[in-house]
Amino acid sequence: MNEPGHPRAPGRAIDMTHGAGGKAGEQLIGSIFRKHFSNPFLDQGDDGAALGEVAGRLVMTTDGHVVAPLFFPGGDIGRLAVAGTVNDLAVMGAVPRFLTASFILEEGFPIDDLERIVISMAATAREAGAQIVAGDTKVVERGKADGVFIALTGLGVAPDAVAPSGSKARPGDAILVSGTMGDHGVAILSKRENLDFETEIVSDCQPLADLAQAMFAVVPGIRVMRDPTRGGLAATLNEIAHQSGVGMALIEAEIPIDPGVAAACELLGLDPLNIANEGKLLAICSAEDAERLLDAMRRHPRGRRAAIIGRVVEDRALLVTMRTAFGGSRVVDWIAGEQLPRIC
Amino acid sequence: MNEPGHPRAPGRAIDMTHGAGGKAGEQLIGSIFRKHFSNPFLDQGDDGAALGEVAGRLVMTTDGHVVAPLFFPGGDIGRLAVAGTVNDLAVMGAVPRFLTASFILEEGFPIDDLERIVISMAATAREAGAQIVAGDTKVVERGKADGVFIALTGLGVAPDAVAPSGSKARPGDAILVSGTMGDHGVAILSKRENLDFETEIVSDCQPLADLAQAMFAVVPGIRVMRDPTRGGLAATLNEIAHQSGVGMALIEAEIPIDPGVAAACELLGLDPLNIANEGKLLAICSAEDAERLLDAMRRHPRGRRAAIIGRVVEDRALLVTMRTAFGGSRVVDWIAGEQLPRIC
Repeated sequence: MNEPGHPRAPGRAIDMTHGAGGKAGEQLIGSIFRKHFSNPFLDQGDDGAALGEVAGRLVMTTDGHVVAPLFFPGGDIGRLAVAGTVNDLAVMGAVPRFLTASFILEEGFPIDDLERIVISMAATAREAGAQIVAGDTKVVERGKADGVFIALTGLGVAPDAVAPSGSKARPGDAILVSGTMGDHGVAILSKRENLDFETEIVSDCQPLADLAQAMFAVVPGIRVMRDPTRGGLAATLNEIAHQSGVGMALIEAEIPIDPGVAAACELLGLDPLNIANEGKLLAICSAEDAERLLDAMRRHPRGRRAAIIGRVVEDRALLVTMRTAFGGSRVVDWIAGEQLPRIC
Repeated sequence: MNEPGHPRAPGRAIDMTHGAGGKAGEQLIGSIFRKHFSNPFLDQGDDGAALGEVAGRLVMTTDGHVVAPLFFPGGDIGRLAVAGTVNDLAVMGAVPRFLTASFILEEGFPIDDLERIVISMAATAREAGAQIVAGDTKVVERGKADGVFIALTGLGVAPDAVAPSGSKARPGDAILVSGTMGDHGVAILSKRENLDFETEIVSDCQPLADLAQAMFAVVPGIRVMRDPTRGGLAATLNEIAHQSGVGMALIEAEIPIDPGVAAACELLGLDPLNIANEGKLLAICSAEDAERLLDAMRRHPRGRRAAIIGRVVEDRALLVTMRTAFGGSRVVDWIAGEQLPRIC
């Protein structure tokens, strides 16, 4: 026990005292979390954040993050966590407003690494126009976690005109993506396996609320919007097909893939359509809105490589099919087994 | 890869496929989470839950849960997570409305245990009048977590009249607790260390929103309300003393302690004032409101053993002191080092 007025310095690595609800934990919160996340809500310092009255339709989402490695080309677990949560709000048509963060830290985790992650979270939250209003830290013994896990929850506000849903795709609708597929997953895998490609493959990890808002501004009636993360485009399209009771017909040649990512996938025997993205949107809209929506996406810095990649079709089997570059056709199934673990 | 229409059964233990964003994960979500948590918001099945317009002042809070063992006398990690989050809202004067849950699962974790936990969460949420509106599941390799970690976030609505804060304690105010101190921490420790006491010590783990509402109904001007969890009553009072710039003078004889908990603490060399509670409230109110508040607490099933345990005093050193049962006086400091890790 310390003398009052002489609190212990937090030291250079997380230890069990940082999670015990005493002075050491208070110090860590002050010197890392409050310092970088500071805003009027968090600074209240109470058990919860009093947000006042919030007008508009609320949207709430949560995501846990366990990515390995914690730092990768194009981002880190902090940027990934904020972007992932913001993007789940963005695809619901919501403007992200408030975030909460729960950290589970492994004993021995370097405090400098924690601070890098927290700085990255703060910067990404600013980029997305959201504030981190409440947080929590727990510490577990060495070997009972893997450095740091972060669970983020987001609260956003959606205008009345906007109500996309996975169940709204209709035969004849156009399917669009905002850019190249598979960048995030391949970047993680390359880093994890120490693979050395000619050009470094960089994660697309970014918050997409501004792009989504620009899209809804042009086409408020976008039927479905999603961010194709875990399981990639294939899983996302299959989910929507089931929710909406439709099939999907894709055209392989129209799906943007970075040549480096394509080469890496070929080498590794992976299909880029199954690989996670963390900075791309998928949208489904009526055929007549498609060109206007595509144009709005391409004019936005986060959507320059947007493309119309296929259309929704009637299909009682709810299949996602693709006309391949060789003129054949194949089913784009979602992966049942493990492909890339801990990609986000 | 599976044939479409023949998804694999989830099996009896969590494996890496459950977190890979494919069919196995979808199946787990359907057969466990959607089944037990079902409500109109969660059943939307989109990336976030559209909550509609929510009138009133919003309060938002988050908490990670890493308790070991996962099942203990009086509760489990699921009940603990829901109660802990609800209680953080309750002490802000808010009625808990919406919860989100992020699960981090270790490969090999029994699915039956997961279902028990999820059932317990659903029951505790019902008890608290809140709905679990969104969730997320991640899986990490064996040895990279410890069974299951759960991060919960809560959103509640507070009436205008109610605005307690840790910074509002004033000299002369009365300090009240809603019941016995230390039950949760000692229950966890007994179970963890296989200690056998004459009478089983049971965690007090419970949602307290109804008790808190009953208290605010009688005394809307309650200055401070807290749930003394990690670090126990001692840490909570020291935090408030710092936030409000005051001292606290406690009377040991007035602090309710279960005789079994007192005996266990003596045996183990622990101070019950440093031990976590998960079903108790601490309140500070003006001296003239104190008896009325005490009466309201005692009339509520979750506050039968409520007591006035001391008062707020002027003290530039911001100390919490206690008149001991033997007539002496001691400083009640918060613990700087590790006392009981992974208590919540």
